[in-house]
Amino acid sequence: MVIKLRDLADRLGVELRGDGGQCVHQVETLDRADDVSLCFFGDHKYRAKLSATRAAAVILAEPDVPLCPVAVLVSTNPYLTYARAARLLHPEPAVTGGIHPSAVVAREAQVDPSAWIDAMVVVEAGARIGPRVFVGPGSLVGAGCRIDADSRLVARVTLCEGTRVGKRALIHPGAVIGREGFGFAKDGERWVRIPQLGGVQLGDDVEIGANTTVDRGALEDTLIADGVKLDNLIQVGHSCRIDENTAMAACTGISGSTRIGRSCTIAGAVGIAGHLTIGDYVHLTGMTMVTRSVTEPGRYSSGIPAMPNARWRRNAVRFRYLDEIARRLEGLEAELDRINNEPQQEPE
Amino acid sequence: MVIKLRDLADRLGVELRGDGGQCVHQVETLDRADDVSLCFFGDHKYRAKLSATRAAAVILAEPDVPLCPVAVLVSTNPYLTYARAARLLHPEPAVTGGIHPSAVVAREAQVDPSAWIDAMVVVEAGARIGPRVFVGPGSLVGAGCRIDADSRLVARVTLCEGTRVGKRALIHPGAVIGREGFGFAKDGERWVRIPQLGGVQLGDDVEIGANTTVDRGALEDTLIADGVKLDNLIQVGHSCRIDENTAMAACTGISGSTRIGRSCTIAGAVGIAGHLTIGDYVHLTGMTMVTRSVTEPGRYSSGIPAMPNARWRRNAVRFRYLDEIARRLEGLEAELDRINNEPQQEPE
Amino acid sequence: MVIKLRDLADRLGVELRGDGGQCVHQVETLDRADDVSLCFFGDHKYRAKLSATRAAAVILAEPDVPLCPVAVLVSTNPYLTYARAARLLHPEPAVTGGIHPSAVVAREAQVDPSAWIDAMVVVEAGARIGPRVFVGPGSLVGAGCRIDADSRLVARVTLCEGTRVGKRALIHPGAVIGREGFGFAKDGERWVRIPQLGGVQLGDDVEIGANTTVDRGALEDTLIADGVKLDNLIQVGHSCRIDENTAMAACTGISGSTRIGRSCTIAGAVGIAGHLTIGDYVHLTGMTMVTRSVTEPGRYSSGIPAMPNARWRRNAVRFRYLDEIARRLEGLEAELDRINNEPQQEPE
Repeated sequence: MVIKLRDLADRLGVELRGDGGQCVHQVETLDRADDVSLCFFGDHKYRAKLSATRAAAVILAEPDVPLCPVAVLVSTNPYLTYARAARLLHPEPAVTGGIHPSAVVAREAQVDPSAWIDAMVVVEAGARIGPRVFVGPGSLVGAGCRIDADSRLVARVTLCEGTRVGKRALIHPGAVIGREGFGFAKDGERWVRIPQLGGVQLGDDVEIGANTTVDRGALEDTLIADGVKLDNLIQVGHSCRIDENTAMAACTGISGSTRIGRSCTIAGAVGIAGHLTIGDYVHLTGMTMVTRSVTEPGRYSSGIPAMPNARWRRNAVRFRYLDEIARRLEGLEAELDRINNEPQQEPE
Repeated sequence: MVIKLRDLADRLGVELRGDGGQCVHQVETLDRADDVSLCFFGDHKYRAKLSATRAAAVILAEPDVPLCPVAVLVSTNPYLTYARAARLLHPEPAVTGGIHPSAVVAREAQVDPSAWIDAMVVVEAGARIGPRVFVGPGSLVGAGCRIDADSRLVARVTLCEGTRVGKRALIHPGAVIGREGFGFAKDGERWVRIPQLGGVQLGDDVEIGANTTVDRGALEDTLIADGVKLDNLIQVGHSCRIDENTAMAACTGISGSTRIGRSCTIAGAVGIAGHLTIGDYVHLTGMTMVTRSVTEPGRYSSGIPAMPNARWRRNAVRFRYLDEIARRLEGLEAELDRINNEPQQEPE
Repeated sequence: MVIKLRDLADRLGVELRGDGGQCVHQVETLDRADDVSLCFFGDHKYRAKLSATRAAAVILAEPDVPLCPVAVLVSTNPYLTYARAARLLHPEPAVTGGIHPSAVVAREAQVDPSAWIDAMVVVEAGARIGPRVFVGPGSLVGAGCRIDADSRLVARVTLCEGTRVGKRALIHPGAVIGREGFGFAKDGERWVRIPQLGGVQLGDDVEIGANTTVDRGALEDTLIADGVKLDNLIQVGHSCRIDENTAMAACTGISGSTRIGRSCTIAGAVGIAGHLTIGDYVHLTGMTMVTRSVTEPGRYSSGIPAMPNARWRRNAVRFRYLDEIARRLEGLEAELDRINNEPQQEPE
């Protein structure tokens, strides 16, 4: 899409300083931008690139205006303004209603005429697919699933039986929502499966990454609240609940029946044990291992950062004896106390 | 399914105390149960819920009988009894034999007439699919695969060429069994693939989770023995062997040629290096890092649990110098020894 | 394929010692080999198996010749020679050009007549598929994708819009290349998606494992250079760049905008934070946590190896106080210094 800077500033609700008649039609990086490109500046690491840019305009914050050689769009939240500008210039393709001839749609399914069912899709009996929903190629919408308006299953998504998806969801390829979770009773040495009878409910504006798996509830539904964003290759166990606007990066695993509060950020490859409660506004850094509930908001971490292998080997061996080290330290402290408190040696 | 409590007790082989004529038709949680619901009680954390339940009956252990206000099914293994009761009340749908018209089944494949081949399935030449097998939508059964009776490929499962699946397997969406594993020789800086010529054999009653990957053997088959249960997003490298009834939670990775014994439990996000042997009855807690063989049964762990970020930073920095800390401690001990053993200063 | 040892030695460019007229037609392990099998010996752990082998011939290094009871192929790089011999004896099946009748190929796509488009494949508009490319069952080749000669999408691969794949790529089932990465701006508590406008470029001879995900770039393409090998269940974030011949084992995650040099080896379940630079010839052992750039070649590690749970619990608790332990140690050292430097107690 092509738009004049003055119209763009109007639609974004930000102030333009520069030639409002100049057109832009794409977003670009500062160094690759040309005179129809719009850029974003937010990190002073890229200051040299800003001063050399040939962009039509740059979105930035007031204090950075003097650094910029071209037109500016001044925003109190430049990154958000950039997100909106980028979507405006590069809109999602509109969904054209219809069903690809190769798709298999059960007669008992309800598909809104404005929804698109792509090639090789299977929609099973009782599924309800709302207005302007896009069901990408190779996806499976299981029996009794419901997908609300404007949601987008990119491709090869699996929604198991009875899964409910809210409005404006974005579900990436390979995601598996609603499979029967990992529940077993022991019969001697053998495992006997416990039927998983709950479902999965995704709220509005939820995003589920590629090859991410969200298991159905054991009895109560697994709940992913409005605005939750899950990255790729994440595991969410049965009967978990994740509250509004929590975001979770790739490769993280959440064991069953754990509840995570709202507006948390959980970085990549975090592991959270089952049956825990993580409160609101908790932030976990990458690879953190959570074995207990976390009730206070704040930033939590664990793990050992990388170091040269030889050094690591020496330290890792010592860790095996850390408790002993601490005890020996206590012993020394006691010993020294004793020495210090000894009566002064009196000459006879 | 609807069943009288007395008939249920008979079929489960447990004792009923209460009105045998009462019917149940579902399992439920203690707090959501109504008078046709059956519940399970096993954790005293939920004692208040038990005493307030309106369930028809509760499965529990003898000592907990006095706590329950409604009819009880008394079991020596209440969780197992619950698993069986739940399956009885909520049976798997029966498989109706047939091939969906959209499926592509090679003429040289053998499909038992009682098996169901669902929409968009591909069955390649030489595959043999046994009685009452369910091959869910979008699955691929590669050339020469064999699937034994009563196994269930839920949906979008990939069985690569020659994979063998035993009886009553349950394979979840997105699982990939039998891809060529990660084997390369170096040619200067370049990697040259080593053909992976082994296969994969899954025993009876095996379960493979969603988006889990099990690589085919390099020369000898990768073996997953009877009763093994793998959760989602697990990686099993080429030529591994996992023995009977071992269960493995999500996000765990096992490198190639490692052998894991029987009745082990391996929690989530564990990593096990290649060419190791893990004995029988080994239990690994979540995120454990296994770099050496484990021969003794027992419970093993590693990793650092989460703590507030500021505290973690201070500690993680110190870990870099843990070996030095230990050496300095040894130095102090020697020093103190010296002081203590110094001849007493004698007055002249 | 069946070949005489003398012809095999010729084609591999290695020296044969033994009966050149003997035929081999498969590779095998030392203990399972029969008189038409070729083996590899490289690890002295298997010396007993070598001396008992009934193979037709064994590939090994000069110093090991005396250990071998049968014919030998003497190589300066036996494992590489083995890789080549195995491929020779077990060649990839040749690709026969054509399009399976169940495939859906957009009229605007270009498919080379020598390429094979398998059952249930979807090829979208503008895609270009080169000579002898194999697109396995259930794969999706998105709009505008390009796949160069001799590449192989094994099955159920997803190439999102605009992805470019070089020559001789091998992409395993369930891989998702080019989904929109995890980029959001905050609007109060809500996340607003940042359109991901870059693509993904895979070089020549790249391998992507099963259920691995490679996100498209935010603005600049995600780049996977020639000869890079990625194992299963790996996440590569948006705008990453991985240089030539780097190999990465399963379950590893790389956050966005990180650059990894050439000929690195990255073991399983490693985590690398975003916006970092890992230099050339860096080797990371399994489960390493990388939070800073690594500029020097070499081997790096982190993490705590497994130990019995009771011991681990004691040590892990102490880790919470490691900084305090170090400070107390410093206190003791100071104290002891003071004692040692005290003026000798003089008798009065």
